[in-house]
Amino acid sequence: MQKIVILHNFDIMAGNSFGDLFRITSFGESHGPYIGGVVDGCPAGISIDFNAINEVLRQRQITSKRQESNTIEWLSGLMDGKTTGAPIAFIVPNKNMVSADYKQDATLLKPSHANYVYWKKYGIFDYWGSGRASGRETVVRVVAGCIAKQYLSSYNIDIKSYTIQIGEAVFADFPNMTDEAEHNILHCPSESVAKKMLAILEQCNQKGDTIGCKIGCIVKNLPLGLGEPVFDKLSADLSKACMSINAAKAFEYGVGFKAAQMYGSQCNDLYNTDFSTKTNHNGGILAGISNGELLYFTVAFKPIPTIMQNQQTVDIHGNMAVFQACGRHDVCVSPKVLSVVEAMTAICLINHLLKFKAYQNDNRRS
Amino acid sequence: MQKIVILHNFDIMAGNSFGDLFRITSFGESHGPYIGGVVDGCPAGISIDFNAINEVLRQRQITSKRQESNTIEWLSGLMDGKTTGAPIAFIVPNKNMVSADYKQDATLLKPSHANYVYWKKYGIFDYWGSGRASGRETVVRVVAGCIAKQYLSSYNIDIKSYTIQIGEAVFADFPNMTDEAEHNILHCPSESVAKKMLAILEQCNQKGDTIGCKIGCIVKNLPLGLGEPVFDKLSADLSKACMSINAAKAFEYGVGFKAAQMYGSQCNDLYNTDFSTKTNHNGGILAGISNGELLYFTVAFKPIPTIMQNQQTVDIHGNMAVFQACGRHDVCVSPKVLSVVEAMTAICLINHLLKFKAYQNDNRRS
Amino acid sequence: MQKIVILHNFDIMAGNSFGDLFRITSFGESHGPYIGGVVDGCPAGISIDFNAINEVLRQRQITSKRQESNTIEWLSGLMDGKTTGAPIAFIVPNKNMVSADYKQDATLLKPSHANYVYWKKYGIFDYWGSGRASGRETVVRVVAGCIAKQYLSSYNIDIKSYTIQIGEAVFADFPNMTDEAEHNILHCPSESVAKKMLAILEQCNQKGDTIGCKIGCIVKNLPLGLGEPVFDKLSADLSKACMSINAAKAFEYGVGFKAAQMYGSQCNDLYNTDFSTKTNHNGGILAGISNGELLYFTVAFKPIPTIMQNQQTVDIHGNMAVFQACGRHDVCVSPKVLSVVEAMTAICLINHLLKFKAYQNDNRRS
Amino acid sequence: MQKIVILHNFDIMAGNSFGDLFRITSFGESHGPYIGGVVDGCPAGISIDFNAINEVLRQRQITSKRQESNTIEWLSGLMDGKTTGAPIAFIVPNKNMVSADYKQDATLLKPSHANYVYWKKYGIFDYWGSGRASGRETVVRVVAGCIAKQYLSSYNIDIKSYTIQIGEAVFADFPNMTDEAEHNILHCPSESVAKKMLAILEQCNQKGDTIGCKIGCIVKNLPLGLGEPVFDKLSADLSKACMSINAAKAFEYGVGFKAAQMYGSQCNDLYNTDFSTKTNHNGGILAGISNGELLYFTVAFKPIPTIMQNQQTVDIHGNMAVFQACGRHDVCVSPKVLSVVEAMTAICLINHLLKFKAYQNDNRRS
Repeated sequence: MQKIVILHNFDIMAGNSFGDLFRITSFGESHGPYIGGVVDGCPAGISIDFNAINEVLRQRQITSKRQESNTIEWLSGLMDGKTTGAPIAFIVPNKNMVSADYKQDATLLKPSHANYVYWKKYGIFDYWGSGRASGRETVVRVVAGCIAKQYLSSYNIDIKSYTIQIGEAVFADFPNMTDEAEHNILHCPSESVAKKMLAILEQCNQKGDTIGCKIGCIVKNLPLGLGEPVFDKLSADLSKACMSINAAKAFEYGVGFKAAQMYGSQCNDLYNTDFSTKTNHNGGILAGISNGELLYFTVAFKPIPTIMQNQQTVDIHGNMAVFQACGRHDVCVSPKVLSVVEAMTAICLINHLLKFKAYQNDNRRS
Repeated sequence: MQKIVILHNFDIMAGNSFGDLFRITSFGESHGPYIGGVVDGCPAGISIDFNAINEVLRQRQITSKRQESNTIEWLSGLMDGKTTGAPIAFIVPNKNMVSADYKQDATLLKPSHANYVYWKKYGIFDYWGSGRASGRETVVRVVAGCIAKQYLSSYNIDIKSYTIQIGEAVFADFPNMTDEAEHNILHCPSESVAKKMLAILEQCNQKGDTIGCKIGCIVKNLPLGLGEPVFDKLSADLSKACMSINAAKAFEYGVGFKAAQMYGSQCNDLYNTDFSTKTNHNGGILAGISNGELLYFTVAFKPIPTIMQNQQTVDIHGNMAVFQACGRHDVCVSPKVLSVVEAMTAICLINHLLKFKAYQNDNRRS
Repeated sequence: MQKIVILHNFDIMAGNSFGDLFRITSFGESHGPYIGGVVDGCPAGISIDFNAINEVLRQRQITSKRQESNTIEWLSGLMDGKTTGAPIAFIVPNKNMVSADYKQDATLLKPSHANYVYWKKYGIFDYWGSGRASGRETVVRVVAGCIAKQYLSSYNIDIKSYTIQIGEAVFADFPNMTDEAEHNILHCPSESVAKKMLAILEQCNQKGDTIGCKIGCIVKNLPLGLGEPVFDKLSADLSKACMSINAAKAFEYGVGFKAAQMYGSQCNDLYNTDFSTKTNHNGGILAGISNGELLYFTVAFKPIPTIMQNQQTVDIHGNMAVFQACGRHDVCVSPKVLSVVEAMTAICLINHLLKFKAYQNDNRRS
Repeated sequence: MQKIVILHNFDIMAGNSFGDLFRITSFGESHGPYIGGVVDGCPAGISIDFNAINEVLRQRQITSKRQESNTIEWLSGLMDGKTTGAPIAFIVPNKNMVSADYKQDATLLKPSHANYVYWKKYGIFDYWGSGRASGRETVVRVVAGCIAKQYLSSYNIDIKSYTIQIGEAVFADFPNMTDEAEHNILHCPSESVAKKMLAILEQCNQKGDTIGCKIGCIVKNLPLGLGEPVFDKLSADLSKACMSINAAKAFEYGVGFKAAQMYGSQCNDLYNTDFSTKTNHNGGILAGISNGELLYFTVAFKPIPTIMQNQQTVDIHGNMAVFQACGRHDVCVSPKVLSVVEAMTAICLINHLLKFKAYQNDNRRS
């Protein structure tokens, strides 16, 4: 077993911005008064569909056991419902900021939870301190992502995510879609698989356990040419965007891990005379650049670590202890994570789209 | 089938830098006179082991069918074999810059190859223009990565990569290692699996086909505390680093995609009294931050698209055609990609380590 | 006369972040409900002196004719009065958001004011739209700067700014200081000069005119070694920091513009045997790097464009018109700008200090 | 006198890149084999006028007493004389890398020279180590700047710099230009002033002394709308660009330092009915954004510290010593610096132009 090396404590929680031309900066702790964000770099003159954003947050709320207040207060950057080009700041108040539940386990390390690394890295062991690791932070991503999606939709770009696996229940036909995804809260493209998934979630709930899942995401009408050839491949940036979501453990696009057992003669996508391809093993990205085919990828998430069963653990003094969670917790990151995957995808894509426009050579084209 | 939307041509191949505090900038085309790079942000006073770097490049050369010249010319940043802190520039000359082979297929789209997207994005359809997409570019990453590894080794951090799957030949015990990896060029941790892999490669070679693979990577002695909680999670940055390698299709760390079928009660890593964990399903990263356990992850690569079989395709005018590759090409990205995975991992980790040092609160610690 | 070329309208107001390791993101319009900011990258464990921050804002308020509310609401990143390392967000509510004054001149171009370029660049001609150009935005810089100053003071680094010129009233001995600066609101280091300055301001006030000024800034105990040799010279970064303040027209450090008429034999700073220098013409920065001597520089600001005199102008249709300002406006950016100069200096210096720490080679030092 | 505080040695010379969308990375020491650079982000399809670049370097060479070889070797990014969009790398070999002159003063601190701060910051006291501080590095900026200028000229943007002061010889009419600048190597807009300047330089030369200067720069046909309102003001970014040049001590645009003694009623630029302004005290930038008027600014440079007179100094052990320079050195940074100012201006402007294009809202315009 390797000995844990600890460099120093009193570090800093940097890395709260994502994107360069369209940049979201996130702030707030799950147990503080607010979480919020600032979007810098949103083009001026876009009509924001506030109802659509509120509806996404409402869906998030009703499918969760945690009682979230998701009323957005817009602080800046909008006039008459349109973006002005100035930074768009918003806050969302938290409810039940300090619950008794959290206080009781003030010295216990929760298994697979952030509190150990936060303690060692930041010198703070507290419900508030580790509040940046909470799933609550993803509300900020979702709001920013909705704005990005509304911009992308003016280019006809459409992003949708689906639950394609929970435990043994698997939708195997991804990325071939049906219309059935709209009829269940998991957005599983098969009604029968969705029923199995919901049954599994209910079993977990009764046992006080949690479970992982796999989310598939599809982007339609993505123009050819987004992504840069070397380090900033579209696939690399999408991967970072999705792997930055809490509990994400894996990312693949196109054939993904199956590529390891495919021959070139199988895997290559042959061209039609209109330059579309007969197959789409590459998943819409070739050499790091979108090629005009359907973009599709999947992300796997681990089970939420807070379970309703007693777990053996230690406290910060190294004494054996038992951790017993209380409060209300979700049994799976899906369906809540669906809009987060879409949001991070949208923020990634809008950055590449804006960069594309920067370099377009309009006054030199014949 | 979706209609391909093309925004504009005459774009730019940006994104040739990686890292912020330790930044590699890469340049050069596979068929130009040189490829090279500039490392900015390398601490002063490090003794460079040039023999070690040359040996990595020599290994790369002898395991490849492509004849590469890998003689590094160091242009700046070194004095008496030590880094001065100034930018370290280097170039590596290319051999056989313009071969007859490349000229003959000047109007054909090669299936699953970069040339279609390069043509549409940059307005250039040429062996030289798409030379940035060549595997040749990875030499630059390897040289920079060796420098990063030598710095990390002063912190006792050790990075090793292994071939753990080629086709049906799988090393299933990853990340549990043996000493056998040193005895085969694929660095497969099992001699018997390595033999199967080599046999598969030989079959591919005879059929003129290519095949994908899966690489595992292990980092020992990584200190606790690298990675930032929200967007710049260590897992997210490692994912981007690895997915930026040519032909990469998937990334996972810890239990990876298996997480989708695990229960929280199974997946959680319980603590020992010394704060180490009884299991390591999290793969060394908790909440985006290294937790002092062994870091491990895998990356899947698709088969090299250039195969020695005739493939149906179209030319740039949309006429049907047959593409017949010639020249000497590898049948799998492994073993060449092994040092590239290690390099990108090292460059990612050195950036997080330097950032860690920036924020350490030395004069406020009691 | 050159013809004005206008590229496009509907642009975006990016560039609302400053710094990389310690980054302030600013948001809010002068006539919106709030202005505010997010500080990302502030080290954990710093005790914030809220009284000191409030006092700076109170000073700002009482020396201004504009009625500002400067009550800070802290949203995140603090616990028990200490920084946690998480992003620190704060908002300050605006008073009198929409005054009748502003509405009346809704189609007039105000001379030397932002509204013309905002209209042409963003397609918005409105009191709100140009609200990012207001001096009100600088409150955000001041709050972030106070936090940076408190961190720097733990390294004993001390930043002070002074009014050294208003019109014909000049303090010529800068950077040689006296204790008299504390005794007047302009922080002019000479009581007698301060009296002249105040008299000039009063005359302006009575004439309905405004006037420019020159601010000097001194940094004591800055360690040797901040700044990078080529593009990121400390002098270059300080210059950008200060020139980003509204109304700034000029920056110089050390001998500044006088350098153009000095001989090398005059200007060179000769060394004492303890490596200090006999003179300090370089102003504390040599080859872009702090050299341990006193850092000093000056910044000039133009007169505030809003004067209480009628000005001939045109409206957005190109018709001749007369612009008559109303409301309460300051006659000079000093004294309000003093804390802004200190803030931008502090934010610039903390970034260089954190970068310094990143690269320090602690485990290789003997 | 303040005590010099030294944090640590063994730092790093970061900050060798400038620009984000169009980024130049510079490398090489004045006494190493090469200096060179990499331009990342140059749009594809631009025809490079190599003769123009060579001519700029030739002018630089013939006006300098230092014997420079300025033969550029292009390594990548070009095909058939056009940019491909890939990174453009180039190197320029150095002559006379290690001269006997440099070796003799291996332990002396040269007054106002980089070697003291380099020694303390990087732990290296050597002609090579401090080679990054040499004026030789500016060749890289000039080459990159020429490429940027050629792109800008396709937008009709024209950048020219002039010597407007050397010692007592001053061209007072700046920015009002004549045609006389083309007729003297200093590009002074008045022949008679140019003669005085040249006489001063000759006197300096005979006395073994050096002298400072002031450079004026004018940009014609700059479109309205470049620059961002808050931190990334065009004026702030130009200031950083110019102050990053070796020996720069001051920057001002428009009325500059004179603003401190102007009234608002004097300084405001009144509008004509075509939205041009009757005066141009703002120097082409209003609220940080180009307003379509002529852009003009000046930069002051200190005298070159290496003079041909004996100077009292100390060695690294703190012993008194006399420094006696030898070799051939210039007496003023002008005329060599003229093309450097133009280059940094061009690189700054192309970044703002590309950013402008990113955000233009083409598909929402009516």
